[in-house]
Amino acid sequence: MASTDFSRLPGFRDFVPEDMGVRTHLFEAWRRVAGRYGFREYDGPPLEPLELYVEKSGEEIVGQLYAFTDRGDRAVAMRPEMTPSLARILGERSRGMPKPIRWFSVPQLFRYERQQRGRLREHFQWNVDIVGEAGVAADAEVLAVALDGLRELGLGPEDVRARVSDRRLLAALMRAAGVAEDRLLAAYSVVDKIEREGRDKSRERLQAEAGLDAAAADAIVGLFDAPGLDAVRERFGDREEVAEALDRFSEYLETLDALGLGAFVDFDLTIVRGLAYYTGIVFEVFDARGELRAVCGGGRYDRLLELVGGEPLPAVGFGMGDVVLTELLRDLDRLPDTSRSVDWFVVVIGDELRPRALDVARRLRARGESVAYALRRQAVRKQFKAAESEGARRVLVLAPDEAARGEAVVRDMESGHEETVSLATFVEG
Amino acid sequence: MASTDFSRLPGFRDFVPEDMGVRTHLFEAWRRVAGRYGFREYDGPPLEPLELYVEKSGEEIVGQLYAFTDRGDRAVAMRPEMTPSLARILGERSRGMPKPIRWFSVPQLFRYERQQRGRLREHFQWNVDIVGEAGVAADAEVLAVALDGLRELGLGPEDVRARVSDRRLLAALMRAAGVAEDRLLAAYSVVDKIEREGRDKSRERLQAEAGLDAAAADAIVGLFDAPGLDAVRERFGDREEVAEALDRFSEYLETLDALGLGAFVDFDLTIVRGLAYYTGIVFEVFDARGELRAVCGGGRYDRLLELVGGEPLPAVGFGMGDVVLTELLRDLDRLPDTSRSVDWFVVVIGDELRPRALDVARRLRARGESVAYALRRQAVRKQFKAAESEGARRVLVLAPDEAARGEAVVRDMESGHEETVSLATFVEG
Repeated sequence: MASTDFSRLPGFRDFVPEDMGVRTHLFEAWRRVAGRYGFREYDGPPLEPLELYVEKSGEEIVGQLYAFTDRGDRAVAMRPEMTPSLARILGERSRGMPKPIRWFSVPQLFRYERQQRGRLREHFQWNVDIVGEAGVAADAEVLAVALDGLRELGLGPEDVRARVSDRRLLAALMRAAGVAEDRLLAAYSVVDKIEREGRDKSRERLQAEAGLDAAAADAIVGLFDAPGLDAVRERFGDREEVAEALDRFSEYLETLDALGLGAFVDFDLTIVRGLAYYTGIVFEVFDARGELRAVCGGGRYDRLLELVGGEPLPAVGFGMGDVVLTELLRDLDRLPDTSRSVDWFVVVIGDELRPRALDVARRLRARGESVAYALRRQAVRKQFKAAESEGARRVLVLAPDEAARGEAVVRDMESGHEETVSLATFVEG
Repeated sequence: MASTDFSRLPGFRDFVPEDMGVRTHLFEAWRRVAGRYGFREYDGPPLEPLELYVEKSGEEIVGQLYAFTDRGDRAVAMRPEMTPSLARILGERSRGMPKPIRWFSVPQLFRYERQQRGRLREHFQWNVDIVGEAGVAADAEVLAVALDGLRELGLGPEDVRARVSDRRLLAALMRAAGVAEDRLLAAYSVVDKIEREGRDKSRERLQAEAGLDAAAADAIVGLFDAPGLDAVRERFGDREEVAEALDRFSEYLETLDALGLGAFVDFDLTIVRGLAYYTGIVFEVFDARGELRAVCGGGRYDRLLELVGGEPLPAVGFGMGDVVLTELLRDLDRLPDTSRSVDWFVVVIGDELRPRALDVARRLRARGESVAYALRRQAVRKQFKAAESEGARRVLVLAPDEAARGEAVVRDMESGHEETVSLATFVEG
């Protein structure tokens, strides 16, 4: 142990007020939008039994966690994601609750990632879930919340794109192309990388890993040449399973249109996401220029709650992280000014007026205004300097002559305009 | 490792929406009040180098921490308090910043406490600090924030009492009574427990541990027979050091009076707090009935920033935890109703009107109203039942005949009053 190393741990952030202002800007937008859709906030512990994550993600995940043994000899981990906690909480409580359950959370999450530029070991994530409703309207509602959250932050369809697919549709197409049931996951994992790895490599892998013959591999890769919904319907729509998945998907898109969010959405069969986890519609939101990692990802996961011993309940949700989103908002210059500011700075001339100044501050604060003043006797010039560095919008000057007449001078710090106000009216106004 | 134990860890809380509503109620009051006093929010990492806490509190603290070695072989700990992180952050940055620095934070803190009824292993704490101002007005401002925060939550001077002392005054009185400089801390620790241990035990301990003779021990214990400020001034006020401390303390109390908060404050020499840490005025806030642990504690700590390698800056601050405060508010029945509610539930009759219903929802949400609706086709009766369980204040019913006339029925769920509204005016109003 280094004996005097107090530095911040690598991959962790301090939030000085300017940064905190940005974080608050995101959180408030998220909370406002979730509230408008009737979602209620919950939270769980940042430390959970390690087993909760192993059960969902397998032993491999342990190496990426802040996992340790606590003083009570329990294997514990700092939460790397929120859904297992949600599943645990609902597993204990959902039976008596009216469905669907619309819940959201804004947890801080932790992963021991290998250090890379821009890769942190903690981030905040907006988690939004509907539990207990299998219908596609729930899928649409959840994506609507995500997109409205982004819109609330000033992002439009020209800034962010939702790429949407359906695991059931993909499965139906795979089956149509002759992929055996036990090779579906292998085939998904090829599709997941088709854009990065290219057609030829993918064709090869589909044969080697998904057990397809050359024609079937061609057919699947061919899906991505003209991957529109119409093309899919034309080529595979006569298969009942495909037609069903397409109908469901159309209803989904129509619902998003009716909610005024259709312009954000692209059908994209290459969106697969976590292999063993999702069971239906899946989506990711990216910046339109495609320069950053995903802003948001989610989908339907109908089997998770059972896994942790709860009621078998269908579920759909997403997670939206603060890191990529903040990068994007910064790149697009859509972040608010978070430098310091107060509504008022009270300048006082002469010690005798100090109690009067405190009383003015008290009254302004009681009206909800933010007020600062010098915490020690200072020359007027110094007090004005402090008012500036506090970002005061207005300065109220209490000087002996004016105060004797029951008046004070108010200076607007931006315009420089000054006016004399009656102290009585003013503080009670 | 138990192989299927997903239960919540002992001492940690889940916040289901009803609980989260209470937590949000506290946090929002804290943030509003801090903002009114011109304080800005910051945050640090929940995981910090272990050494940061050892440096402040000594090796003994390690046994009470969630401390472990991370995968990069660093000795780390989940933060047990916020001030060391604040000191670290300011140590790196304060030199360029205008003083005083008014910052607050609402961190979750962790301690591996021995399990007892009502003792948790995590809690949230409102931390408020002024850094860079040694004057007593800063001490008053900080206590004012704490008291105004409690007032904002509906607590008055009849509910909570601030017990205030000054370590410099206590030291001056100790010296007046003949306590040697190197026995001051030992004497403080006796005073700290004088109410619990009683006069005789304390007199004994002062002789045994603080090296006082019987007369000096009597003199100190005697301080607590008539512990008012006037009594202290009368008996010891002719000593310069005592007079100075008393003057400072009077100014402090006058400032709190001018800020409208004097009624909350009692002078109480037995308030000592963390032995090696505080250097001036110290305070604790208790429920007036004295039934609970302290709601809040703080004071002046002028030497901490130096300790972690920063600029030597005077500082004063407090921490207010959510657990005791919530108990108190619950006991006094001052918590808000946090059961679920939405502004609107849209009931739709017939599938054809569904897009129309979504459009109405969209428009209401764009106005900032919260809106829910059934996510699947349901009988009207079932939809009304869902509206009730969502706590809808109003239900908007879209039915074919009315909709054909461009109208809808709005039902106020509390009064049962119904009225027909024009859909056009209504959604654009």
